[in-house]
Amino acid sequence: MNNIYDDKQFFDEYAKMSRSQQGLLGAGEWHQFKTLFPDLNGKSVLDLGCGYGWHCKYAIEYGAEKVLGIDLSEKMIDEAKKRNDEPKIRYMVCAVDDYDYPANSYDCVISNLVLHYIEDIESIFKKIHQTLKANGVFLLNIEHPVFTAGVKQDWIYDSNGRPQYWPVDNYFYPGERTTHFLGQNVNKQHHTLTQILMGIINSGFKLEVVEEAIPSADILDIPGISDEMRRPMMLLIKSIKQQ
Amino acid sequence: MNNIYDDKQFFDEYAKMSRSQQGLLGAGEWHQFKTLFPDLNGKSVLDLGCGYGWHCKYAIEYGAEKVLGIDLSEKMIDEAKKRNDEPKIRYMVCAVDDYDYPANSYDCVISNLVLHYIEDIESIFKKIHQTLKANGVFLLNIEHPVFTAGVKQDWIYDSNGRPQYWPVDNYFYPGERTTHFLGQNVNKQHHTLTQILMGIINSGFKLEVVEEAIPSADILDIPGISDEMRRPMMLLIKSIKQQ
Repeated sequence: MNNIYDDKQFFDEYAKMSRSQQGLLGAGEWHQFKTLFPDLNGKSVLDLGCGYGWHCKYAIEYGAEKVLGIDLSEKMIDEAKKRNDEPKIRYMVCAVDDYDYPANSYDCVISNLVLHYIEDIESIFKKIHQTLKANGVFLLNIEHPVFTAGVKQDWIYDSNGRPQYWPVDNYFYPGERTTHFLGQNVNKQHHTLTQILMGIINSGFKLEVVEEAIPSADILDIPGISDEMRRPMMLLIKSIKQQ
Repeated sequence: MNNIYDDKQFFDEYAKMSRSQQGLLGAGEWHQFKTLFPDLNGKSVLDLGCGYGWHCKYAIEYGAEKVLGIDLSEKMIDEAKKRNDEPKIRYMVCAVDDYDYPANSYDCVISNLVLHYIEDIESIFKKIHQTLKANGVFLLNIEHPVFTAGVKQDWIYDSNGRPQYWPVDNYFYPGERTTHFLGQNVNKQHHTLTQILMGIINSGFKLEVVEEAIPSADILDIPGISDEMRRPMMLLIKSIKQQ
């Protein structure tokens, strides 16, 4: 996994995004994602790719007893400690694919917008299954396969500069896609829907919810938001550890 | 549901497709779909939108005791009786949304490439759940949301007439799409992935397999087939009745 988030210029741009400045309320998918959370009263939570720590903080406010947030980026973890410090939260600089995933240790694992940076997601799903207790909940938000299979992950524009349609290509050739995000080239991984869902099922989970993030009706008149109705960008999944 | 399949010109064109002439072996997705079939020994099977009856015949060959194939199109049912007649198969002219779905009657329900003609698929999923016995299996092949959200369900071509990319638009506005298929305008229904998967889950099923149809490696050199690697066309789903 690459570590663009420790690049100063990129990180400074990331800091300007509404999800950075306003936290969860600035994230367009939060109204949907939060409905997937199980009761966290007294529970232990692992947040994979915690970023600024918004979900860690939310978990504590929502009753969790103990939260570990890990992130590859030192700058992110510094920011999390500044913004969302809590005695019950531990933040650790650690890549999602380097963590040791102690067996039967967590009631809930959250991963928000990070697994599309990982090529072999199925190995991560298996580790998440291992580290969850029986009936533990895995909450995933990952970029949608339609989005990651987008040509340069951008619209085709008409002659007036308006988005004309979203181009999909090479869908069944998963792997690295270089995209332009926050002024830099960023490498992401395209996974097919099959890889995501069967990776989760084959790791021993039952799929409870599979929902595409869709803007809430009350923000559709914000410039640019109506285009979010034209192609899916994020896939939200709630699954339960079985066996 | 419209009944384009009883239009003579359309039906004659349909008869020329390899899946019509060669049956299951002429259907590119069959190598995958057949692996989803449960043991059918002594079982009762319902085929929704049976067409020429290929899946009905396969079910009998595979051990099923009793099969009902229904299809809206008289021409299809006539053809099924000619090509795939069997004492254990009953064919009936009946639309998928008109059938009465007797409770707890079938071990397996198959629906191959027909539910993208139905707007309210969740009501059909609920009826399928009702007509299945406990732990019964529902096998679905439906056009993929990326395909049904395609602009005119066709590629954008480059100046040499080669497919350049697959354009997606208005994804979160499900409903009717008029497409050009076999020389005629055909109305289909676009459903989002959320509608398909949550429709199945909310009807009381457990998702066992969700797989996009992908061409088998040995046919990739057939003209046109390599383009099938560039965008998904069909979604194959196996689910089990719970409760």
